[in-house]
Amino acid sequence: MDPDAVAKAFVEHYYRTFDSNRAGLANLYQEGSMLTFEGAKTQGAQAIAAKLATLPFQQCLHNISTVDCQPSGPAGGMLVFVSGSLQLAGEQHALKFSQVSILFLLPPFLASN
Amino acid sequence: MDPDAVAKAFVEHYYRTFDSNRAGLANLYQEGSMLTFEGAKTQGAQAIAAKLATLPFQQCLHNISTVDCQPSGPAGGMLVFVSGSLQLAGEQHALKFSQVSILFLLPPFLASN
Repeated sequence: MDPDAVAKAFVEHYYRTFDSNRAGLANLYQEGSMLTFEGAKTQGAQAIAAKLATLPFQQCLHNISTVDCQPSGPAGGMLVFVSGSLQLAGEQHALKFSQVSILFLLPPFLASN
Repeated sequence: MDPDAVAKAFVEHYYRTFDSNRAGLANLYQEGSMLTFEGAKTQGAQAIAAKLATLPFQQCLHNISTVDCQPSGPAGGMLVFVSGSLQLAGEQHALKFSQVSILFLLPPFLASN
């Protein structure tokens, strides 16, 4: 399994979900997951989805510029670093953004262990 | 130990070293460390220091805008996300940058385990 391909597929899925069905992001987090958004920490899948749902913008479109990934930690984790721009409805200029995710691959996606 | 204080101290030390003694960054990586720089992966402390030493700029000054951190993984790891600007000698405009580090705290800095 090519880690870069997994990272890109995750990133496409994550931001497509963010832009079209933000509540669906809850499925991509677990109870132990933590989100730090502009300095504010939120823990747990439902709390994270609620935080993302109440950001001060609704319609948005993420355009991805770069996706970098590398292995992280002993348990099959993968660090994914994304940069790009965020176009908000009614705004002339897109915002730059960057976001990091740590993926933990679960069976059947995990090749060993 | 306050994780945010550790993250800020690490970030200050890392970029002060980067700007004044780039070869000294080797001490902040281990053999299992990986650096992904603009898509290129480098592994191991000496190889990472060599990669950073041969970036296409010499004199530089990092200005840090934000430092976010959160726990990462089961082994006392901490994810640190930095954004800021990078002023190169002789260049009028600073470049924006962002960088992620995963810190593994070793004794005596690790409070438990």
